[in-house]
Amino acid sequence: MTNDDDSQLLKLIGGNIRRLRKRAGLSQEQLGLISGLDRTYIGGVERGERNPTVLTLFHIAKNLDTSWECLFEGSQ
Amino acid sequence: MTNDDDSQLLKLIGGNIRRLRKRAGLSQEQLGLISGLDRTYIGGVERGERNPTVLTLFHIAKNLDTSWECLFEGSQ
Repeated sequence: MTNDDDSQLLKLIGGNIRRLRKRAGLSQEQLGLISGLDRTYIGGVERGERNPTVLTLFHIAKNLDTSWECLFEGSQ
Repeated sequence: MTNDDDSQLLKLIGGNIRRLRKRAGLSQEQLGLISGLDRTYIGGVERGERNPTVLTLFHIAKNLDTSWECLFEGSQ
């Protein structure tokens, strides 16, 4: 994390993932299990504390049955 | 890289970055310099051999004066 813009972007993506995960009726643990990620890692992504790779986001989006656009909603 | 879908996605994003970089009139070295990344890393991303983090893509998009949508153009 190098600056405020970066931090804001990660928080925005994380907030979108949390919202979409809840809408899908999944717990952090369930999303982690089907994505091959630890529950605590999902929590860190949702809080904007992690800088996930593009493939990690791709798998999360697929497992939430959603698109890139929804993960980045609100960003420029 | 775990499977064909992953590999295809990275190649698609890399191809978009290469196209947008050329449109911007930048060399791999120039894009690397303003993004704080090595030229060889940019080359690896463009060939789909690297799995960049979301912040790396964010910085590349900003430095190419483009949007997320353009980087992911052609993906689902």
